[in-house]
Parts: sequence; structure tokens; C-alpha cells
Amino acid sequence: MSKPVLHFWFEFASTYSYLSAMRVEDMATAAGVEVAWHPFWLGPIFKAQGWDTSPFNLYPLKGAYMWRDMARICAARGLPLRQPDPFPQNAILAARTALLALQHPQGPAFCRAVYAAEFGQGRRIDSQELIQELLAETGLPAQLAEEASGDAAKQALRDSVAEAMRLGIFGAPSFIADGDLFWGDDRLEMALARLSA
Amino acid sequence: MSKPVLHFWFEFASTYSYLSAMRVEDMATAAGVEVAWHPFWLGPIFKAQGWDTSPFNLYPLKGAYMWRDMARICAARGLPLRQPDPFPQNAILAARTALLALQHPQGPAFCRAVYAAEFGQGRRIDSQELIQELLAETGLPAQLAEEASGDAAKQALRDSVAEAMRLGIFGAPSFIADGDLFWGDDRLEMALARLSA
Repeated sequence: MSKPVLHFWFEFASTYSYLSAMRVEDMATAAGVEVAWHPFWLGPIFKAQGWDTSPFNLYPLKGAYMWRDMARICAARGLPLRQPDPFPQNAILAARTALLALQHPQGPAFCRAVYAAEFGQGRRIDSQELIQELLAETGLPAQLAEEASGDAAKQALRDSVAEAMRLGIFGAPSFIADGDLFWGDDRLEMALARLSA
Repeated sequence: MSKPVLHFWFEFASTYSYLSAMRVEDMATAAGVEVAWHPFWLGPIFKAQGWDTSPFNLYPLKGAYMWRDMARICAARGLPLRQPDPFPQNAILAARTALLALQHPQGPAFCRAVYAAEFGQGRRIDSQELIQELLAETGLPAQLAEEASGDAAKQALRDSVAEAMRLGIFGAPSFIADGDLFWGDDRLEMALARLSA
């Protein structure tokens, strides 16, 4: 019998997606669940809500709290945390590359490497150089970074955003378990429980 | 030695505050912590963020998700859930009465009774009749409902909102533990862990 699948929707610019990306595979394995990784882009979704940047920038109190909350959670989980400049990062190149990388077994490792660079080390993730470095680090072909600027990769990201909107996704990370939407790293346990019940 | 104190900031119109109000005393007792109940009003705080109603109404996708999320959590905790009409409820009378009720030992029980009526039964909480019924139910003097419209009670709620703003509170429920802010029912465990560490 095939394992149940947790659909993990994530945005590379999102801090709480970092938290989930770093633990989702281990937790899913422990629950007997497979993970389908879905990189997407929040830009058009936030725009539809009338936002032109991260809500953590639009609402400064919420933004200050988010960094405090992240610092506490990262400390508890032994994860490094450094704020990249600017925040949010332009994550489109990373997302397009990830869609290609996820056609290979090393795809999830590449996604974790992007997050580790961005929020573990505070590096910018919008350059070809960084993306190529991370592809090499995870044993993926360097040309994926160039293919990511091609029409097929652009279309793949547009399709991913359209699918996220169709699913009612409005933020990241989001999980779809058994057709039901769960939003936020703090709902990962509930989403997995749905599948292993 | 006196017990550490968890400061619980709640708004009667807030669904997630209902979740916390129904479990905070039991969890705090188990952790050896005392709870200080702080009713406040989000109206002026949301207005400062440019919102004229609940963000769950301003952002319909988020609102639909919130009710789904609440239904799942209430089911898991054995709590009834009914959406009051309108949502959000005008919670000012309840908040002013609660500030008076909390000068009595039955204060927390009165707060829980308000939430049970509002989100357990879907009743309106903006009438003197309902507030008087709940005062009687929890063994508190009926005249608190009238005192709640007096100048002292009005000033007490204004003071509570000002203190919430001073603490950097931007949503409800919020917890202050050891001077640190925690936002959301899903951070109650972390806030308690801070105090019992």
C-alpha cells in the first residue's frame, strides 16, 4: 500500500517556511507519510489581498514579534537564524530552480540548502552564483540555474501559484492533508495527524 | 515563595482568545503558574494598523480558514463552536464588566461564561440582559452590568488598551511571561514553559 502524502506548500522568502522545511521530512518519515514539495510565490497572492510586500513589513509590530518568535523557536530547535537584507528576499529564481530540482531526488536537499543560506547565514538568494553554489553542494547539475530563467520554468512557477490559489492558500507554509488546508509551521503536527489517523 | 505569573491578554470578540480562556487556568495550575486575566479591546489597536474590522473579515480567505481551523481545534478539545452573528461581536460591555468582575474571585469564571455564550452557543454578548444572566450564573452582583457603563469602568478599559499598546500587543490572545510577548493560543505552551523553566 502506498503511503499517504502530505503536500507542503512553501515560499522561499517566508521565515516560517524555513522552520517547516527543516523538519518536515523527518516528521513525515516518523509518521509514515510522504512529502510532496511545492515551491510557490506569494507575490500575486499578497497583491490580491492589497499588500505590496510582506505583512511583517506592512505591520511593524507584527514584524518585530515575528523575529522574536522565530528566534525563540530556532533556539529551541537548534537552528541558526540570521535576518537576510533585504527582507523579504526576492525568491523567484530560487523557486523556479527548485521546481526543476524537485524532478531529481536531491530536490528537498536543495530547498533546505536555500533556506540554510538565506535564514541560517543571512545570505541573499537572488543571484545565479548562490543558486549554482547550492546546486553543486547538493549534487545537482549547474545548468538548472540557467534553465530556471527559461520559459518552461517561468510557466511552471505560474502554474504553481495558480494551483496554490485554487487550493485557497493565502500564506506560507501551508499543508494540504487529505484535501484539508493547514496554515503555519505550528499546524504541521495536526496535518500529519490527519494522515496517520 | 510566590508563584510566577502568566499575564493573559484577551479580547472577547476573538475566537482564538476563546480557546485560551477555556484552558489557561488548568494548564497554568499544572505548571505551577498563576494567571492574571487582562481583558482589553482590539478596536483602537486594529485602527492604528489601518483596519476597521477583524482581519478575518478584511481577508476572506484567512477568515474562512480561521473558522475551519477553529472547528478542528474545538473538536479535538471537546469544545462547542458556533459562529455568532454578527462577527466580530461588539465586546466592549463584556470587557468593561469583566474588568469589574475580575476584582472578585469569580472573575475568570465570568470571562469563561461570556466565551461559552458567544462561541459555544453563538449568542450576542452586547446586551445588558445577557451580561446580567452571566453575572448571576457565576455568582456575581447584577449591578456590575450597570457599573460597567460608568466612567470608572470606561476609564479602566481605556487604561487596559493603553497598557496593551505599551506592551507591544497587536492581537489576541497574547501572553506576557517574564516580560516576553507570546501571541496566539498556539504559543500558550511556550509562554508557560518560560515561567516553569
